[in-house]
Amino acid sequence: MVYAGRFTVSTQGNDDMLDITGSVEQAILESGVVNGIATVFVVGSTAAITTIEYEPGLKQDMASLLERLIPRDAPYAHEARWHDDNGHSHLRASLLGPSLTVPIVNGRMTLGAWQQIILLDFDTRPRTRTVHVQILGE
Amino acid sequence: MVYAGRFTVSTQGNDDMLDITGSVEQAILESGVVNGIATVFVVGSTAAITTIEYEPGLKQDMASLLERLIPRDAPYAHEARWHDDNGHSHLRASLLGPSLTVPIVNGRMTLGAWQQIILLDFDTRPRTRTVHVQILGE
Amino acid sequence: MVYAGRFTVSTQGNDDMLDITGSVEQAILESGVVNGIATVFVVGSTAAITTIEYEPGLKQDMASLLERLIPRDAPYAHEARWHDDNGHSHLRASLLGPSLTVPIVNGRMTLGAWQQIILLDFDTRPRTRTVHVQILGE
Repeated sequence: MVYAGRFTVSTQGNDDMLDITGSVEQAILESGVVNGIATVFVVGSTAAITTIEYEPGLKQDMASLLERLIPRDAPYAHEARWHDDNGHSHLRASLLGPSLTVPIVNGRMTLGAWQQIILLDFDTRPRTRTVHVQILGE
Repeated sequence: MVYAGRFTVSTQGNDDMLDITGSVEQAILESGVVNGIATVFVVGSTAAITTIEYEPGLKQDMASLLERLIPRDAPYAHEARWHDDNGHSHLRASLLGPSLTVPIVNGRMTLGAWQQIILLDFDTRPRTRTVHVQILGE
Repeated sequence: MVYAGRFTVSTQGNDDMLDITGSVEQAILESGVVNGIATVFVVGSTAAITTIEYEPGLKQDMASLLERLIPRDAPYAHEARWHDDNGHSHLRASLLGPSLTVPIVNGRMTLGAWQQIILLDFDTRPRTRTVHVQILGE
């Protein structure tokens, strides 16, 4: 069985981190799939999906880390070419990736108790993001 | 067909890197799936799954790299807030990600000859880790 | 339904970045799958798959970023042990990962308009790379 779930979220951009676990769980519930997988995919080249213990400390730590590794104000060929300001947004998104696949066992994702699915928006302005939740199983 | 495989491993934490390829192969064998995919997922927010040429040199290089990019002894808001010592563990795990999906073709994963599936445990103490191997196919 | 697609590409190594979106679309077309997922997987431990806005500026920015984070000329235990020159290639590949899963909805991948699937080859010489496109769905 294949179930094509989808939802949108509003972000503030600028490393905004959103816990989307509940919306993914909702899609799984609607799908009726009890054993299978859920692929969570964010559309666009300046956002990413991963897991984290979702709490304010790590939210701040993740933003600091990415600013240190891939600074906003460094020179980027992307920005020179397109008169844009989001070279760092693209690189951060490509490094983390837009896709995450999670097993579904007995109707529930196999996440840990302190492991949430997050969307990170690295763009430099507020955005509305579309997230696909593709569910396969039985 | 969906097969829900699972196994546990004991780690030393502190960037311990384990080759789990054999355990994933065992789950595929038990599933009977000949063509499909295997999603390998580690439960918890301080461990990760990826592939590498599993040999002692790269084991050491990976630990050095992560210590340079995300140092253990840097200040983390997570640690200040929770009186914890594993801020770096969370960030390393989120960057690498908990999930890997590998094609199964003619009963075998499509890994390269020197490409193993590894679990990295970034926590600061020994842990028992649960790994799910969700197999879909025919 | 499971469809096992596969293609090869020739790379220059040395951070060569190739847009493989068209080849993945071709495999989906051949599979006849309208709703499902495509898992794109590169064989080998010195190449990676992710998404990016594929344009010359970001191609240059990605290479610069990885050279800054994981320099080619730093000392690596892998190279000391095996008298090899590609320690950085392995680490870059493990960090980005060899696998990407994308939803297929109404016969098309759910990529953004400026979001392409890329193969990055980090090895230090030209290579021929095998990419598997495992498609599940209906």
